[in-house]
Amino acid sequence: MTNLLSALCGDDEIEALLGDARQVAAMLAFERALAEASADCSWIGEDAAAAVGAAIDGFEPDWADLYAGMARDGVVVPALVKQLRARVAEPHGGALHRGATSQDAIDTAMMVQIAGIFDVYERRLNAVLDALDGLTRTHGHAQLMAHTRMQMALPTNWGAKLSSWGEPLGRHLRALSGLRGSLLVVQLGGPVGDGGSFEGHAEAIRAGVAQRLGLGIATPWQTQRDPIVALGALLAQISGSLGKIGVDIALLAQNEIGAVRLEGGGGSSAMAHKSNPVNAEVLVALARYNAGLSGVLAQAQIHEYERSGAAWTLEWLTLPQMLIACGASLRIGQTLLSQLRIG
Amino acid sequence: MTNLLSALCGDDEIEALLGDARQVAAMLAFERALAEASADCSWIGEDAAAAVGAAIDGFEPDWADLYAGMARDGVVVPALVKQLRARVAEPHGGALHRGATSQDAIDTAMMVQIAGIFDVYERRLNAVLDALDGLTRTHGHAQLMAHTRMQMALPTNWGAKLSSWGEPLGRHLRALSGLRGSLLVVQLGGPVGDGGSFEGHAEAIRAGVAQRLGLGIATPWQTQRDPIVALGALLAQISGSLGKIGVDIALLAQNEIGAVRLEGGGGSSAMAHKSNPVNAEVLVALARYNAGLSGVLAQAQIHEYERSGAAWTLEWLTLPQMLIACGASLRIGQTLLSQLRIG
Amino acid sequence: MTNLLSALCGDDEIEALLGDARQVAAMLAFERALAEASADCSWIGEDAAAAVGAAIDGFEPDWADLYAGMARDGVVVPALVKQLRARVAEPHGGALHRGATSQDAIDTAMMVQIAGIFDVYERRLNAVLDALDGLTRTHGHAQLMAHTRMQMALPTNWGAKLSSWGEPLGRHLRALSGLRGSLLVVQLGGPVGDGGSFEGHAEAIRAGVAQRLGLGIATPWQTQRDPIVALGALLAQISGSLGKIGVDIALLAQNEIGAVRLEGGGGSSAMAHKSNPVNAEVLVALARYNAGLSGVLAQAQIHEYERSGAAWTLEWLTLPQMLIACGASLRIGQTLLSQLRIG
Amino acid sequence: MTNLLSALCGDDEIEALLGDARQVAAMLAFERALAEASADCSWIGEDAAAAVGAAIDGFEPDWADLYAGMARDGVVVPALVKQLRARVAEPHGGALHRGATSQDAIDTAMMVQIAGIFDVYERRLNAVLDALDGLTRTHGHAQLMAHTRMQMALPTNWGAKLSSWGEPLGRHLRALSGLRGSLLVVQLGGPVGDGGSFEGHAEAIRAGVAQRLGLGIATPWQTQRDPIVALGALLAQISGSLGKIGVDIALLAQNEIGAVRLEGGGGSSAMAHKSNPVNAEVLVALARYNAGLSGVLAQAQIHEYERSGAAWTLEWLTLPQMLIACGASLRIGQTLLSQLRIG
Repeated sequence: MTNLLSALCGDDEIEALLGDARQVAAMLAFERALAEASADCSWIGEDAAAAVGAAIDGFEPDWADLYAGMARDGVVVPALVKQLRARVAEPHGGALHRGATSQDAIDTAMMVQIAGIFDVYERRLNAVLDALDGLTRTHGHAQLMAHTRMQMALPTNWGAKLSSWGEPLGRHLRALSGLRGSLLVVQLGGPVGDGGSFEGHAEAIRAGVAQRLGLGIATPWQTQRDPIVALGALLAQISGSLGKIGVDIALLAQNEIGAVRLEGGGGSSAMAHKSNPVNAEVLVALARYNAGLSGVLAQAQIHEYERSGAAWTLEWLTLPQMLIACGASLRIGQTLLSQLRIG
Repeated sequence: MTNLLSALCGDDEIEALLGDARQVAAMLAFERALAEASADCSWIGEDAAAAVGAAIDGFEPDWADLYAGMARDGVVVPALVKQLRARVAEPHGGALHRGATSQDAIDTAMMVQIAGIFDVYERRLNAVLDALDGLTRTHGHAQLMAHTRMQMALPTNWGAKLSSWGEPLGRHLRALSGLRGSLLVVQLGGPVGDGGSFEGHAEAIRAGVAQRLGLGIATPWQTQRDPIVALGALLAQISGSLGKIGVDIALLAQNEIGAVRLEGGGGSSAMAHKSNPVNAEVLVALARYNAGLSGVLAQAQIHEYERSGAAWTLEWLTLPQMLIACGASLRIGQTLLSQLRIG
Repeated sequence: MTNLLSALCGDDEIEALLGDARQVAAMLAFERALAEASADCSWIGEDAAAAVGAAIDGFEPDWADLYAGMARDGVVVPALVKQLRARVAEPHGGALHRGATSQDAIDTAMMVQIAGIFDVYERRLNAVLDALDGLTRTHGHAQLMAHTRMQMALPTNWGAKLSSWGEPLGRHLRALSGLRGSLLVVQLGGPVGDGGSFEGHAEAIRAGVAQRLGLGIATPWQTQRDPIVALGALLAQISGSLGKIGVDIALLAQNEIGAVRLEGGGGSSAMAHKSNPVNAEVLVALARYNAGLSGVLAQAQIHEYERSGAAWTLEWLTLPQMLIACGASLRIGQTLLSQLRIG
Repeated sequence: MTNLLSALCGDDEIEALLGDARQVAAMLAFERALAEASADCSWIGEDAAAAVGAAIDGFEPDWADLYAGMARDGVVVPALVKQLRARVAEPHGGALHRGATSQDAIDTAMMVQIAGIFDVYERRLNAVLDALDGLTRTHGHAQLMAHTRMQMALPTNWGAKLSSWGEPLGRHLRALSGLRGSLLVVQLGGPVGDGGSFEGHAEAIRAGVAQRLGLGIATPWQTQRDPIVALGALLAQISGSLGKIGVDIALLAQNEIGAVRLEGGGGSSAMAHKSNPVNAEVLVALARYNAGLSGVLAQAQIHEYERSGAAWTLEWLTLPQMLIACGASLRIGQTLLSQLRIG
């Protein structure tokens, strides 16, 4: 997304949480946790873990080399580990990344990043719900003409409308909370995902890494991407629930309907009298975008063999964009509700 | 789907559960339950409820009239209610469908139908898991060359492979169970979805209808389709998990790999020597189909106003097809595993 | 699609053109043309071609056996050829389907079927354009308030609106015409698609088959599905252009706008005063459906090796549904315009 | 896309052609051409056009103000015009953007940008075709085992394989050429798209702008997005054709098949012996990505009224990403073919 488009429908906070620096930091946290957990069960020595930790302290990646590695290897981890290993005091180089494979670092780091994004989502969902509660207090009893199938139906009140906007958001909050347990888990399986490379310590190290990174424990899920698909669907649902609010407001703000108006609507380059429901429209666009992308992300569930570079890359092409779009939906939803004037 | 295509990748059992006859039967069950529950709280008389019940007993719809009504009204309920009402002994005609709107009947009936489909899914998921357990007992310790990114990696064993196939299915079973509570709920909101047409009895009648139909209770969700989107995502995940099994088997059954072979593979019209992994391929097709359709269904979350004919029709165009495809995935998955010969 | 749903948003005429009987008839036409063209270049004898033709004359398939063959082989051709061959007088059995593979029969038959569907589309597109022309003559100068971004903009006239509805349809007509040359072509490649099985006669036989079936000539395209993707995109565009008309009419028919009204709008089971813009809404649903499905069909472009059962099956799951939906868009579009009352 | 991900599957050249700076430059070119063409037909004076041109010369936008305008107005043009107008010597301020609306500037600028992208595509398509021609010369007669439905079929030769890879690319080249005439056209309709704001000069000014910008002439197409959908489908087809090459190479490079190998395959952080077909896999990912996105973009065809902010924003969210992904497919396709070693 260009900066101009991002100004309209991006999300600085989420974009930062998904940025290269954050991703590499999360991978470094994984490598540190791995070394410490490996030392805990004496699979590597304490001095080796300390050497790994020292190498990570203050590490500044050679970004150009990482980009080149990414293009060559399809994952950044081989280049990153090579850079890091050059900083590990000998004879402890082999302790770094021991037993692990690129996917362990990448998937676990992604979960650390997503945990931070969930915090933002929850904060914003609560803010939207607070705004809806406020509107209910002030306008819940105000009458509103209901429309079904694009035709006037019967009078209802704003309380019913606001409640129908808020109930899905409450479900989404609960779903996010549920996903913290089932999705935000460590990945640690070694080269082929069976944990064999950890020579009997896989379970213990997995627990130690998970505990250090604030993630749940899970058996390796490298080819089991169904929780990712479930996440995508939740992102689509969140954007969809905000999109529903958007389409309602755009309709109710039509001049001929006039049930609401918007403070600070968008201007036109040609018609000075207009006040466009820009944020309402963008919510609809984001909803349709995440709806569609959820169907693309779901294609990435079909991994060949023990790891599919094709499916995994497709996941990277879609999931971050969906996370940003979902964040933008929540950000813009808050703004739109603050612009809303009922009656 | 034509009969020929359905023979390959359809599902007779699920198609029957989604058929016109079953849908109308579920709507009749709704109308009966509505009358009985309305009588329970004395909103209509017991004799009125009995008259409605008598009208429903032995009712045979005039299908041509229903088709015409569907084409005219966009929903079948007005025509169906008109046919039924002609059979309700006067003065009880008004007791039929009292307070309700088309969507109450349609959405509730759909949930009754889906409840039956969930039974089938659970039975089949358990059958697939049983088959995987059987294979694990007989071949769990057999060695298998793992492949990552389409290249030979390191040896693993079939136990790890079979476990990676089965774990998602266990999650899907739990998710289905969870959806029974959150998705399979009654819809009863009246014309504009605020329950006002039930004159204070909405909550009681809703509970009575739900209890009679074996559904959960919920506030009206006519424009809140996020649980439908969640269902679509689960269908995609189930088909996706079976598709992952399919792609693995198709790859492992390559002549040059030869890690598995299939009894009863498909024949060719031109090459007598071939044994095509037809069922494995169809699982991949169904997985990609349901993945993509989940993104189309999600577009239907965005309802305008208090009811969107456009969004609702889009839901009908996609959800039944996904339910059938998911059933077919499970059906064919069972067959494929029964054809599988390891080693 | 169930009969009820088909009554609303299906298309009897297109469904018939895609039915099993029509498909088998097209395959028989292919086999007959193949035998005749093979005899033309003396690759088989005239008597052999006559024996094949005689076997096809009056052939009634054993449908149950075809269904079973479809389920087993993933394609119906092996079972069909076996049934037919039993009717070919010896020693000419080998002349039937000689050199060909299932895909030759299936893809070519599909193109014959689609040619018939294009005829329907063109007839209907012209009918919609005629209706728009009629409205332009009667109401082209009538004023209409233009709305941009859901807000009143400036007055325009109905001529501009009607013209914006019709121009895309003119493009679609031209695109259909263009696809007749590039898409509606014979498939004849033999088992692996290189024509080798025709022992030097591939080009001549291909031309003879194409000429007999009214198709264009092309090198084998069994794994080159890009023209199919282009067809899907055109179907989405046609449905989209009708959906644009639908959304405009649904908006302009809002009670508060009242720029148009619809004769014979849909009724409600609960609100007798309503006249729902059912056909307008269905056009939007069909547009979103075909839009989304075009993205699913495009996944089927990626064939593995010389023929992918997975990709091909995915094509069958999506393309016929899109053809029906596109037909329904045109059918309903005609109806909707006939219901439209301006001013 | 982060820089890391872009290093793998982005495209610097296309990203630059879609960047903010390039977009604003194209808008400035539009405004200049509009003023000049308006002067040509004496709708504004030559001195006014000169004043507009002088204001554009050396103009450096206040980017922060543009971002703020974009977020507020949903389009960048009002803020951009305001900045520019402050630089136009009075009394000529009104000559800038006269008669035009934001969409005229945005859509026309987009077409200018896409024209540049088409140049890159054509260059790269020809390069891929050259590489295929080279391989055909050196290996066209080499034997290759054909596989259908994932099973060994019969021997064919590399010439047939390479030809099946190249033929779609030839079609894509012709389709790009065709789109230059039908898609790469000027947009000039004024506020509501009927050209009325140009007071009788719309046609002449449109021709003048088109000629200056190297675009074709067209009636206003602000709500007619079917050519955009056709473009999206072509991008999906191009990525799909490269994805087909990718999946074939990934399959043929399997160790057990060994029909090809890749120079400079990707490394693993855990398995030193591996040479991963990274570029082949990325081509498949990009193909599935653009396939799916084409179905999302098609949702944007459905514009409400005379301009839909929702549909238009959805177009912006998808089309640029597809253009980049298509460019990346071509870029990586070239690299992959240069890595390919046959036999």
